[in-house]
Amino acid sequence: MEIVRKEGPITGEQIADRLHLTRATLRPDMAILTMAGFLEARPRVGYFYAGKKNDEIFGEQLRKMHVKDYKAVPAVIAETATVYDAIVTMFVEDCGTLSVVKEHGILSGVISRKDLLKVAIGKQELDTVPVSLVMTRMPNIVTVTGEETVYEAARKLVENAIDSLPVVKVIDALTKKFEVVGRFTKTTVTKILVELGSNRDI
Amino acid sequence: MEIVRKEGPITGEQIADRLHLTRATLRPDMAILTMAGFLEARPRVGYFYAGKKNDEIFGEQLRKMHVKDYKAVPAVIAETATVYDAIVTMFVEDCGTLSVVKEHGILSGVISRKDLLKVAIGKQELDTVPVSLVMTRMPNIVTVTGEETVYEAARKLVENAIDSLPVVKVIDALTKKFEVVGRFTKTTVTKILVELGSNRDI
Repeated sequence: MEIVRKEGPITGEQIADRLHLTRATLRPDMAILTMAGFLEARPRVGYFYAGKKNDEIFGEQLRKMHVKDYKAVPAVIAETATVYDAIVTMFVEDCGTLSVVKEHGILSGVISRKDLLKVAIGKQELDTVPVSLVMTRMPNIVTVTGEETVYEAARKLVENAIDSLPVVKVIDALTKKFEVVGRFTKTTVTKILVELGSNRDI
Repeated sequence: MEIVRKEGPITGEQIADRLHLTRATLRPDMAILTMAGFLEARPRVGYFYAGKKNDEIFGEQLRKMHVKDYKAVPAVIAETATVYDAIVTMFVEDCGTLSVVKEHGILSGVISRKDLLKVAIGKQELDTVPVSLVMTRMPNIVTVTGEETVYEAARKLVENAIDSLPVVKVIDALTKKFEVVGRFTKTTVTKILVELGSNRDI
């Protein structure tokens, strides 16, 4: 298995040679490994590895899991709220990022603890500055839909160096009108990893 | 395979019965599955499933990965620093939690963006309050060592609802004297998941 995985395609003769065995001795074992689906054999080419490595199984699994089945409930605040309101909402909802919404839950921005700390060390009064002045605005927000995979969502978090993605339902793709339906965060990812690692059914 | 996995241990006769086959027809297939290690056969007991399910492989993999190989560099601040210094250090280091240390990098506390926001909405001046007044203190800090597994570390993050663990070297277990040697965060976990999901070697 090890030889085929590293050097395949490789002929039965070459494998026998490497193991200091005759082809006749090796043949029944190769037959079993081929029948069991670990190796594939092709005439005049040789054996090659057909099994999947652990990390390939990992990757496949993550691509079968969808954001809609793992997302957390949305944590939102109105555009008209103040920075002070946003901080309080974060404590109440126990989360690190809020989606800022206009009427009908339409995404207008995102505000993080980091954004709020930036205001806090400034000279402004927290209870007069509106969140709309501090938030990251559409269309500069990285979002994810429920149909995307957990792997894609995690990749967006890493590549954009952010803690949280609003999970959205696209109302109008052209005008980027998105309704906020949840959130997918590094906490979500960490819970998924623990769940996967606990040997429980997923 | 499906039958054995669901109903094992189960005898060859029972399996043949379920598939409407004779035992003789079934025997070579059962021999191959047993030899390949998918099933185990025990005399007078029957066949049972020996293969591993995907999530078992996941769990095993996560238990083979150690914190020391994945941790990020420590982000620290001195006990004597102010809350204002802590906020600035977080921006400079681009992280959400700092380890507070005394001489020789010995862990004394932990301070998060959440702790700092709490001060920010209070009446106190950020540049006069010392971090030691606001931080979570030893021995109430959840830590991890480099020898613990990625799975254990992720579990600590979820169970304690925290974003970051100081990775420590134990200097004196009795007096809880720990040296800070790194950090393990939800960002670390998210990067690991993306790496595992990318089908690359790990």
